[in-house]
Amino acid sequence: MDIGFLGMGTMGRPMARNLARAGYDVTVWNRSPGKAASVVDYGASEAPDLSDVLQKSVVFSSLADDRAFADSVLSTSSLQAAKSGSVHVNLATVSPGMSAEAESRLAERGIFYVAAPVFGRAEVAEAGELTVLVAGDSRAIDEVAPLLDVIGRRTWRVGDDPKQANVVKILGNYLIATAIQSMAEATTVAEKVGGSPELLMKIMNDSLFPGGVYEGYGAMIAQRRYEPAGFRLPLGLKDVRLALSQANDVNMGLPFGGVLENVFLDALAHGQADQDWSAITEATRRRAGLDVRRP
Amino acid sequence: MDIGFLGMGTMGRPMARNLARAGYDVTVWNRSPGKAASVVDYGASEAPDLSDVLQKSVVFSSLADDRAFADSVLSTSSLQAAKSGSVHVNLATVSPGMSAEAESRLAERGIFYVAAPVFGRAEVAEAGELTVLVAGDSRAIDEVAPLLDVIGRRTWRVGDDPKQANVVKILGNYLIATAIQSMAEATTVAEKVGGSPELLMKIMNDSLFPGGVYEGYGAMIAQRRYEPAGFRLPLGLKDVRLALSQANDVNMGLPFGGVLENVFLDALAHGQADQDWSAITEATRRRAGLDVRRP
Amino acid sequence: MDIGFLGMGTMGRPMARNLARAGYDVTVWNRSPGKAASVVDYGASEAPDLSDVLQKSVVFSSLADDRAFADSVLSTSSLQAAKSGSVHVNLATVSPGMSAEAESRLAERGIFYVAAPVFGRAEVAEAGELTVLVAGDSRAIDEVAPLLDVIGRRTWRVGDDPKQANVVKILGNYLIATAIQSMAEATTVAEKVGGSPELLMKIMNDSLFPGGVYEGYGAMIAQRRYEPAGFRLPLGLKDVRLALSQANDVNMGLPFGGVLENVFLDALAHGQADQDWSAITEATRRRAGLDVRRP
Amino acid sequence: MDIGFLGMGTMGRPMARNLARAGYDVTVWNRSPGKAASVVDYGASEAPDLSDVLQKSVVFSSLADDRAFADSVLSTSSLQAAKSGSVHVNLATVSPGMSAEAESRLAERGIFYVAAPVFGRAEVAEAGELTVLVAGDSRAIDEVAPLLDVIGRRTWRVGDDPKQANVVKILGNYLIATAIQSMAEATTVAEKVGGSPELLMKIMNDSLFPGGVYEGYGAMIAQRRYEPAGFRLPLGLKDVRLALSQANDVNMGLPFGGVLENVFLDALAHGQADQDWSAITEATRRRAGLDVRRP
Repeated sequence: MDIGFLGMGTMGRPMARNLARAGYDVTVWNRSPGKAASVVDYGASEAPDLSDVLQKSVVFSSLADDRAFADSVLSTSSLQAAKSGSVHVNLATVSPGMSAEAESRLAERGIFYVAAPVFGRAEVAEAGELTVLVAGDSRAIDEVAPLLDVIGRRTWRVGDDPKQANVVKILGNYLIATAIQSMAEATTVAEKVGGSPELLMKIMNDSLFPGGVYEGYGAMIAQRRYEPAGFRLPLGLKDVRLALSQANDVNMGLPFGGVLENVFLDALAHGQADQDWSAITEATRRRAGLDVRRP
Repeated sequence: MDIGFLGMGTMGRPMARNLARAGYDVTVWNRSPGKAASVVDYGASEAPDLSDVLQKSVVFSSLADDRAFADSVLSTSSLQAAKSGSVHVNLATVSPGMSAEAESRLAERGIFYVAAPVFGRAEVAEAGELTVLVAGDSRAIDEVAPLLDVIGRRTWRVGDDPKQANVVKILGNYLIATAIQSMAEATTVAEKVGGSPELLMKIMNDSLFPGGVYEGYGAMIAQRRYEPAGFRLPLGLKDVRLALSQANDVNMGLPFGGVLENVFLDALAHGQADQDWSAITEATRRRAGLDVRRP
Repeated sequence: MDIGFLGMGTMGRPMARNLARAGYDVTVWNRSPGKAASVVDYGASEAPDLSDVLQKSVVFSSLADDRAFADSVLSTSSLQAAKSGSVHVNLATVSPGMSAEAESRLAERGIFYVAAPVFGRAEVAEAGELTVLVAGDSRAIDEVAPLLDVIGRRTWRVGDDPKQANVVKILGNYLIATAIQSMAEATTVAEKVGGSPELLMKIMNDSLFPGGVYEGYGAMIAQRRYEPAGFRLPLGLKDVRLALSQANDVNMGLPFGGVLENVFLDALAHGQADQDWSAITEATRRRAGLDVRRP
Repeated sequence: MDIGFLGMGTMGRPMARNLARAGYDVTVWNRSPGKAASVVDYGASEAPDLSDVLQKSVVFSSLADDRAFADSVLSTSSLQAAKSGSVHVNLATVSPGMSAEAESRLAERGIFYVAAPVFGRAEVAEAGELTVLVAGDSRAIDEVAPLLDVIGRRTWRVGDDPKQANVVKILGNYLIATAIQSMAEATTVAEKVGGSPELLMKIMNDSLFPGGVYEGYGAMIAQRRYEPAGFRLPLGLKDVRLALSQANDVNMGLPFGGVLENVFLDALAHGQADQDWSAITEATRRRAGLDVRRP
């Protein structure tokens, strides 16, 4: 099976490499060239033209956001170049609306659109241990399932409608953001009353809240270690807004989401755009009159 | 070592039983008699008078709230009956202010006050698998440490000031409450857009949020199974208010806490006082115009 | 001076009529014809083509929203038809961004763009008693000032940058929305404790809060009289979002605005789209467990 | 008619003076002596003992808060000294619960309790232009009505149950607090986008929001002039909490009230306790990253 792969960013590169390493015939492309070396080392080839990659039977994309995806995959020339009967697998976190539009426009060209956003950071992608959320035409998913198994530790089938996978991904990020803010509030109280934020989080991880989210962010928050950013604060705000927007579309408010939007904006108003999204903690500290780490 | 134990409620009974089963000489007391049978079966004796129990070298208490504790332990007659040089270990979730008052008043009688609230429900207490948060005079804690090891799987020493243990306990419950509300919001969005709340929570538990809190409450929320109540909604509100009150005392607001107080009140205004605290989910559902399970 | 007037809606009609009645030579246009009768009665003429109206020295527009304005005034054909050296006065509540775009695109054609949103409903427009907020090139404003005096009781010059007038208008509507929600909360408390919402609002109007906003909406809220809608609920939500969006653009959250967005969505989720925006009161009542007036 | 008057504070003094000036036989008392000179000048006498004043047919009190009232009026000695058949008129802002307790305990001694909180500051009291909210036994109110007419420009009868007058007073202050916060948000947006907060508030006062609250606080907020404090920030927080507490007692949350409590706490955490309550504006400014006036 010949595979195309668009996007050689922090996430795309390790995913494509794992596919090449598993023996698949992978052709990669990136808007700015020269990023694919580590993938080519594992036997992939780099295509000079986007249209070459779109000719493959299965095309993955891992592009920054809605706009980057639409520009590369849904442009008139790309739609013309794409191969009828092929499957397009979008690994990125795009809006449910983007998925809906992609599905309908690719269908006009006889292409199956599968949404397959993932949970996990670069090092998890490297290890092939991502969690994959997949939705779309079930036969198309059957076809790409072995490939998703190479990329991730587990694939969850979420439904026939691609955008359902995006909704789950967005809600997952929303739950992470709420966990971050709740830890920010709790550790700030602990410090204000003379306790130890680090001890608090260790106890929480040991007793009530195991797992990477509470352990990883818990330590970052307790130690106020926000750089280098694993996930930049403006991207976190973007994802919180995707959740708010999804809820608003069905006439529903998110009370925690409104609080989150405000602390993200507070952080941006104080120059924290290059910090990790867990740095919203500083907004809570500022309001409480505690000293604040300058970005 | 002779041990006294006040309070034969859902939590007190299994803890006292484990101490008796471990071979300690335990004398128990409960305001209303006849609740201690299952403890006596393991060799404990039941005292007719509160003052008998207060004569022991180590006295545990597991009483409902601030008031029940103050009535039983800090009354004039109790203070006169208590044994100088003994250690009082308060296992209940009381306010930090209550702990501070208890420490000072017992100290006047030569008694060491140790705060030792626990994480875990009745079945966890039964198995001796509680997490114990302990704070107070370090020699007094050394003395009771072997007993706490009988009660729990692990003891965390939080500091010399008893109220610090209460703060950690309160913040732990606060984090649980915020997790509940965030799951309520996420599952409601999922349902409104045609997804499955149960699948959402399963994916979250598998990928991002393992552990009893997200798994247990996640399932209850997704299935909207709030009865029988593991922890009644008004008790949840009481604990959220302890966190708010602790924060307010140091001139700090809790933005998530304000949201929580409002959804708890909304639930109470709709007759949900006998449901589990995870039933605040119904407030979010009502606001979103979804059908609501009548209590 | 020859005047063009685009938009014969509830607000446009009385404003154009007042200009005609004052003796000006007014030519009107509306997308769907047949709405201008009452204006023509006062001596105005109705143009069959939009381009005829755009030839006038001063062109007013009173169109529904950003899109209607852009479609009619900023389309390629309109820009070509428009008269160099003329002044365009936009009386509608559009976004500051729309004003900025209009200013720049009309300037390319040698046309001055003046933003002049107004406070006041149809009956106030009828009486020529509107409050006009005007911003833009000061000589252009000098030129149209006598015309604005016909339309309103008072004109406030807000600055040289047209979008500043839109900001003031949006913030004014935001203050009205917050006043509505605060009255909703206060009257609901009053009712829950056995008091009279109507008496409460009468006392407030007499002592602390005179003026049309608190008197008009106070009575509607106290009597829960939301139909016919003076200003429909979805339009209110649109304006609250304009305020949120304006604030967000400068990295600022609006805590009250977040609350407002949620109660508007709650109202929409309960079928209240055709009620007046003061009907957000019912969301507060529902949450408090009070009976609710079905839309 | 012989009148007693307890409390020679900022409000009590001018009210008592107006009664003396109107020719009534007024006997005043203050906890710390030497404050009554300006009242005695108008013919009042100062009693050395609280009990002398409590012997009068009508006793007014204008004391700081619940505790000051209870200490002076509901102590055992005061209750014994009080004259059966007399009327006690409480002019202060106390909690509804305090009024309920006072009514019942004074009734046991045959005394009628009338709650009569007022709107208006010291200079309004001076001019006899207060708005009086009165509730209690209707014959007792009939008896004191001429006296209330001396104190105020208008008396509103709120009901037979004294605490209803306190509820109206609390809700009035709640509406003022929400108006302050909404102006804080609006003026901060205006400044962030380069507009003039002062012009904004002038336009609002002229068009939508006339009256002392929006005019007085609007100017203070726009100019950020918070000292000397007309009403100190901690007193504002106390009143917001009275509203929250009243709502919570009937299982109702106040979404705006939660926001308010948080900005008041934020202000206190930044040392603003001696500023006017309109200085909560600085919390909104801080969050928006604007420069902040140091207290």
